[in-house]
Amino acid sequence: MNSALKTETQDLAPEKHLALPLSTEALAREYRRVRVNSLRLCEPLAIEDFGLQAMANTSPPKWHLAHTTWFFETFVLKPDNPGYEPWHPAFEHLFNSYYNGIGTPFPRPQRGLLSRPTVEEVIAYRQTIDDRVLKLLESGHETDAECLRRIELGLHHEQQHQELLLTDLKYSFHVNPLLPAYRRQTDRPRPTNTKKANAWVEVDRRLVTLGATGDRFCFDNETPRHRHYLQPFALATTLVTNGDFLAFMTDGGYRRPELWLADGWDLVRQQGWHAPLYWRRQEGNWYCYTLSGLRSMTPDQPVCHLSYYEADAYARWAGARLPTEGEWETVAADLPVVGNFIDSGQLHPQPADSAGDTLCQLFGDVWEWTASSYSPYPGFQPAAGAIGEYNGKFMSNQMVLRGGSCVSDAGHIRPSYRNFFYPADRWQFSGLRLARSL
Amino acid sequence: MNSALKTETQDLAPEKHLALPLSTEALAREYRRVRVNSLRLCEPLAIEDFGLQAMANTSPPKWHLAHTTWFFETFVLKPDNPGYEPWHPAFEHLFNSYYNGIGTPFPRPQRGLLSRPTVEEVIAYRQTIDDRVLKLLESGHETDAECLRRIELGLHHEQQHQELLLTDLKYSFHVNPLLPAYRRQTDRPRPTNTKKANAWVEVDRRLVTLGATGDRFCFDNETPRHRHYLQPFALATTLVTNGDFLAFMTDGGYRRPELWLADGWDLVRQQGWHAPLYWRRQEGNWYCYTLSGLRSMTPDQPVCHLSYYEADAYARWAGARLPTEGEWETVAADLPVVGNFIDSGQLHPQPADSAGDTLCQLFGDVWEWTASSYSPYPGFQPAAGAIGEYNGKFMSNQMVLRGGSCVSDAGHIRPSYRNFFYPADRWQFSGLRLARSL
Amino acid sequence: MNSALKTETQDLAPEKHLALPLSTEALAREYRRVRVNSLRLCEPLAIEDFGLQAMANTSPPKWHLAHTTWFFETFVLKPDNPGYEPWHPAFEHLFNSYYNGIGTPFPRPQRGLLSRPTVEEVIAYRQTIDDRVLKLLESGHETDAECLRRIELGLHHEQQHQELLLTDLKYSFHVNPLLPAYRRQTDRPRPTNTKKANAWVEVDRRLVTLGATGDRFCFDNETPRHRHYLQPFALATTLVTNGDFLAFMTDGGYRRPELWLADGWDLVRQQGWHAPLYWRRQEGNWYCYTLSGLRSMTPDQPVCHLSYYEADAYARWAGARLPTEGEWETVAADLPVVGNFIDSGQLHPQPADSAGDTLCQLFGDVWEWTASSYSPYPGFQPAAGAIGEYNGKFMSNQMVLRGGSCVSDAGHIRPSYRNFFYPADRWQFSGLRLARSL
Amino acid sequence: MNSALKTETQDLAPEKHLALPLSTEALAREYRRVRVNSLRLCEPLAIEDFGLQAMANTSPPKWHLAHTTWFFETFVLKPDNPGYEPWHPAFEHLFNSYYNGIGTPFPRPQRGLLSRPTVEEVIAYRQTIDDRVLKLLESGHETDAECLRRIELGLHHEQQHQELLLTDLKYSFHVNPLLPAYRRQTDRPRPTNTKKANAWVEVDRRLVTLGATGDRFCFDNETPRHRHYLQPFALATTLVTNGDFLAFMTDGGYRRPELWLADGWDLVRQQGWHAPLYWRRQEGNWYCYTLSGLRSMTPDQPVCHLSYYEADAYARWAGARLPTEGEWETVAADLPVVGNFIDSGQLHPQPADSAGDTLCQLFGDVWEWTASSYSPYPGFQPAAGAIGEYNGKFMSNQMVLRGGSCVSDAGHIRPSYRNFFYPADRWQFSGLRLARSL
Repeated sequence: MNSALKTETQDLAPEKHLALPLSTEALAREYRRVRVNSLRLCEPLAIEDFGLQAMANTSPPKWHLAHTTWFFETFVLKPDNPGYEPWHPAFEHLFNSYYNGIGTPFPRPQRGLLSRPTVEEVIAYRQTIDDRVLKLLESGHETDAECLRRIELGLHHEQQHQELLLTDLKYSFHVNPLLPAYRRQTDRPRPTNTKKANAWVEVDRRLVTLGATGDRFCFDNETPRHRHYLQPFALATTLVTNGDFLAFMTDGGYRRPELWLADGWDLVRQQGWHAPLYWRRQEGNWYCYTLSGLRSMTPDQPVCHLSYYEADAYARWAGARLPTEGEWETVAADLPVVGNFIDSGQLHPQPADSAGDTLCQLFGDVWEWTASSYSPYPGFQPAAGAIGEYNGKFMSNQMVLRGGSCVSDAGHIRPSYRNFFYPADRWQFSGLRLARSL
Repeated sequence: MNSALKTETQDLAPEKHLALPLSTEALAREYRRVRVNSLRLCEPLAIEDFGLQAMANTSPPKWHLAHTTWFFETFVLKPDNPGYEPWHPAFEHLFNSYYNGIGTPFPRPQRGLLSRPTVEEVIAYRQTIDDRVLKLLESGHETDAECLRRIELGLHHEQQHQELLLTDLKYSFHVNPLLPAYRRQTDRPRPTNTKKANAWVEVDRRLVTLGATGDRFCFDNETPRHRHYLQPFALATTLVTNGDFLAFMTDGGYRRPELWLADGWDLVRQQGWHAPLYWRRQEGNWYCYTLSGLRSMTPDQPVCHLSYYEADAYARWAGARLPTEGEWETVAADLPVVGNFIDSGQLHPQPADSAGDTLCQLFGDVWEWTASSYSPYPGFQPAAGAIGEYNGKFMSNQMVLRGGSCVSDAGHIRPSYRNFFYPADRWQFSGLRLARSL
Repeated sequence: MNSALKTETQDLAPEKHLALPLSTEALAREYRRVRVNSLRLCEPLAIEDFGLQAMANTSPPKWHLAHTTWFFETFVLKPDNPGYEPWHPAFEHLFNSYYNGIGTPFPRPQRGLLSRPTVEEVIAYRQTIDDRVLKLLESGHETDAECLRRIELGLHHEQQHQELLLTDLKYSFHVNPLLPAYRRQTDRPRPTNTKKANAWVEVDRRLVTLGATGDRFCFDNETPRHRHYLQPFALATTLVTNGDFLAFMTDGGYRRPELWLADGWDLVRQQGWHAPLYWRRQEGNWYCYTLSGLRSMTPDQPVCHLSYYEADAYARWAGARLPTEGEWETVAADLPVVGNFIDSGQLHPQPADSAGDTLCQLFGDVWEWTASSYSPYPGFQPAAGAIGEYNGKFMSNQMVLRGGSCVSDAGHIRPSYRNFFYPADRWQFSGLRLARSL
Repeated sequence: MNSALKTETQDLAPEKHLALPLSTEALAREYRRVRVNSLRLCEPLAIEDFGLQAMANTSPPKWHLAHTTWFFETFVLKPDNPGYEPWHPAFEHLFNSYYNGIGTPFPRPQRGLLSRPTVEEVIAYRQTIDDRVLKLLESGHETDAECLRRIELGLHHEQQHQELLLTDLKYSFHVNPLLPAYRRQTDRPRPTNTKKANAWVEVDRRLVTLGATGDRFCFDNETPRHRHYLQPFALATTLVTNGDFLAFMTDGGYRRPELWLADGWDLVRQQGWHAPLYWRRQEGNWYCYTLSGLRSMTPDQPVCHLSYYEADAYARWAGARLPTEGEWETVAADLPVVGNFIDSGQLHPQPADSAGDTLCQLFGDVWEWTASSYSPYPGFQPAAGAIGEYNGKFMSNQMVLRGGSCVSDAGHIRPSYRNFFYPADRWQFSGLRLARSL
């Protein structure tokens, strides 16, 4: 190894990723903001909607509300508090998602069968736990850094569940032939400029540094920050759109095995995939089911609700490939995290505003499938105890997605953020951006 | 054939089973009574409970409320009414149970995913259809007999669904670790007399007449009335009790293949059956989940929630067998239809009041598995059109049960009534009474 | 009950069905005849064919050869012989079919995975057991009647397996795209007379006696002989043919739910049934796979390889129904057991020779589905011990078939013979004859 | 990027991996050697063994023999030969494994149902194709390089199938309670030295070059050769042994969810995993089923037949992790490829001979699971046409294994060789070596 390289890598302090927690005041403010957002998301729901669970991978809205509360009770209020009286003795079982270190979770596919506790009871549960957490934060007692970190983790955990609440609900609603709209909305004026031509951002071979920078909150799976060698590559400036994807379909994309990974082709045949999830053909026209109900398919919107296999097949058809997560992060690292997030109120990916010759929509709109399997970064160490089950134990069989979506909270996303889903999963707002080796 | 026999059989007028329908006034009264009962059954429910469906064979309470209404709309209001405007165009699809002649039913296992229409909307639907049906009845126009018959059929159909609503709900509730009670209730004073010894009613060989007598409403599967030859047999005076069944269990009943039908033994091993459905062992004692919550197992209550295989295995262990439906009906034909039905408010089988030396509990308490497969009676003809799908198409793979249960409407049961379930089904109030060949 | 009837039924001696066993000489002759037939059936096979098992319900030829031998070892040689040395200690496990009283049978779906013992070893096993059984028979010692009965039972058991060996092999072969022929053969000259018109044999209401007559061997499920009351009915003189069935298909038979039992319609859709098993359409013509390979479909041959559901749907389409087993036996009871059995060498049902105005093909050609579920006759008692598992424990969920087929041994069939299969089963030579209520 | 680094990477000629094919003489020699080896492997088999297929992922020996022959016919003899007459028109369908570009492969799970063609016919098929290929090679005509490359590929393809033939057969045999031995053999004298203590080879951070070096044959998935940055790590000198793994088991390894990846823990519970595949406990002692039959478990043999999940859980329990494939290759790159391969005749991993303080058993004995998912190397391009389906389409959901096993051909293995299996797969000779981050 030459000495220049050695110098470059020595400045990676292994603990730098552990950012200082927010101040208790800032944390209390954020706590109130995030927690109330979960309830606001449920305002359009009928009581009957709170129990919907249309497949095992999803959870009912009520369960999301209770589980995120259970998280604070279990990991913030209960530790180091031997006399802690739980709000309800059965909730440890009912609302544990997957923490084997805590006990045996209630079977996931049956979450929709918990008509009790009622919505009203779950909201009362939230209120009580909120009071207790805020009292803890505002007590003036010296709260230890670990406790503050766990509250901050709990808030990011809740923001993840806010996104899931919407994607899960969308999936459940679409099973109902009435195709209920989560929230009706009028179309915003469409941009008048025509389809942007894609361009390519080229990056030469280089040694880069990846992972959380340590100046703000991150999940453990973004650490440690580490060096990585990149071959020369190009990244598309634009997301693949519905119109692009329709061209793939028209060219027989779903009928040509040579475009597909073997496992993906098996699924195409078994599941009868012939279009992205939520696309429907009626009287010769394509429609998409959205959180605002069934809408005409819009060609210049980014395509979404693709599995990894569909994204990969599209890229192969287009003579390109998916980017690795290292490539994506290298390009995204210095860009501002702005885009179509949940606060836009659109709840659906939107056409690009900017011209196609500059990078656009890296953040927001759709999660972008990468070619990288979800693996530990070199030197990764999960936290000790049950909270270490948060991320690490899922590091097999899944693929990394980057950039956040139209139902992510803007404050929750950062360039180093690693989302992960199974390659067959389609119910997230998952799309793609092309890359090429140079 | 000797001439005496010929004479006996000649008096079976084939059409006699078609009883005259009730008068329009009586029918309107009955309509109001039955329809309001469905809503009363739902009074203890939280809105969240209305969507519960814990297995494909069951339906959510809301679906029962809507489907029974759809039945009147489809089979009473719509026929011969070309301009009929349905309450909602999608309901024909959503609330059709299995009538292929009407269209394609919404998939049964997904009924619990219909959060919309809401409970409020379904109740409004019921109200509108009720108004239309009652207006039809009260219009003074000459209503044809077929229409009146269909209204009466619709009411018996609704009474079947009232029973299912409770048994389905019980199944759904018991999946929830909170074990919700449908309705709390205090134990009624227990009878003080000790366990009745069983006795046997003996019947000599004879030619009997089976099937609906034609003097009141019946389903088509109870017709035509027909002769049947019986070998000599004995029928137990009492139902098999929890205590009896516990003796079978203690004697290794669930571990001894020689006691079981082959298909039943496969299920015992695959499903891990080791006690009736809803029995739980806690700290050395047996409990039963009931519609009033978890209760101590009571030895002198009739055992219930058995599959056909368990009933059959018990009978074999006891050196007896299950009665055929012809044997059961022969004994029951002249007895008054009284017993522990839904109007008692117990919602659970109760110990016998009478002494064991006389027949007791033939009606109410538990449906009694018979040894008879559910087959058409000789000369059976289902009704023409979609309504002919009501019973006939299920005449394979199921077994007949007789006598009604603690959640049946008393007015709905009669000696010739043939209920039918698959031999593996356990979620009905299904028990047994022994028989022997002489 | 009138006295005439009483008199009629009193002459049913309950034990009359236990026919005297054959003499030891006759039994030894029959033993040799039957046992060698099993090997002859295997003469056309390649060693590679002996292990074929294309679905769980079927067994490989080698397994049939070994299991039938195990039957004699287990039920004839071993009882009352404490020092008996089994041929191989593992065979009790490997070749036990379903006798829980003997031990735990090797899992049925894996029988095709037993490459060892080899074919040569199994033939040696047969030879040794044959020597021992024949020595027992010829020893001159007084052999008890029970032992002789079991040998006779073992021979009928083996004849059942000879039929299964061929139907199982046919199923396994047809999975291979090469469509191997079990035995090539030239078409025999076709009868020149044209299609027989069907006629009906009418039977008035009467009290009949059913079950084994007791003058020859029978299985326990044919006993006890008992009285049964029949309503007036008519039975078709001819079997339903391929041409008849094609008319049903052409009329949309497989696409019209109103013709089907509910469970059958589910299977039609799930399995994509659109023709009898083994029918193939190539370039506009229908072909049938037979034990002689793929042959043109012949309209006047009896249709076969139907499930119960297909037979039942056809009958409904034809405005008729399937006969009950009582009706069938009543008509067949006094007819000679002649027909197209395995000794004809055809191995496939053949067109009727006789004119259509008289009953034909009641025996041989195809097993005829009846409308009767497989249930115990009144007063039925299985044998004590493991051998009692032979028939009784299968008396649920199956339907009775009558008459034998083109691969049955003529000597094995009698009017009271009750064969039974699940209503979904199609791999037997199963067809139908119509009936009507009068 | 500093210039020193740039220089280092510029020398990676992109086409260097395409080694010159062997001379036609050398290739003909190798062809004869490899092809005859397949038949030699089958010498211990009974004809009955050739059809065994105990799970969908495996294939029968006869199918391996035919498929490897089909490969030469399809990819060597047929291309550019328009009048080519195939040996049998159906073989293109029957013996195509997964090449969608060639046609529709016969369903994988049914390969065991092809009793025809017989073994004799398949051997005749091999002989004919061998004659044709050798004639092509020896014709003196100028054979193009692509054709020679395909023959060489076909030979490596056949060597892969030779290994699979043995691992598949082992799996099929162990389902038979007779536990047949593929080949009996006497134990070789055991080394007398005691268990080697493991030591660690440490490697500092560095930029390495990975992938095929281009001086000999390689598969496309080993290309292109490329730079990769490594963090500092240590690699264990020894393989994990049966004794080591038993300590994990004794410490509750299979009962402690905190040691497992989530998907692995699900499998542990669903499949009841409690020991490596082929381990059996009898009377308090552990045994392993081997290709020589059931043997006592030997503590100092390398553990094998582990899934990725078990290897990963063991590593976590041991406070270590699995190496990445880049780490493994970096250490192995310059070592001689010697070890316990198939030519040793052991057919089972053997205890290490060398002392534990030096690297041992990197090649042979067991395939070593790595922490790397099977992904394309940067710039990877599969071959054009159907032959491009060989490796590339499997690059999802699988993990890389390195080093070859006791049933690999020594000439087939090299440091850059990437084997790949699903993380749940256990039927290969798969074990592990630990690594640690420094």
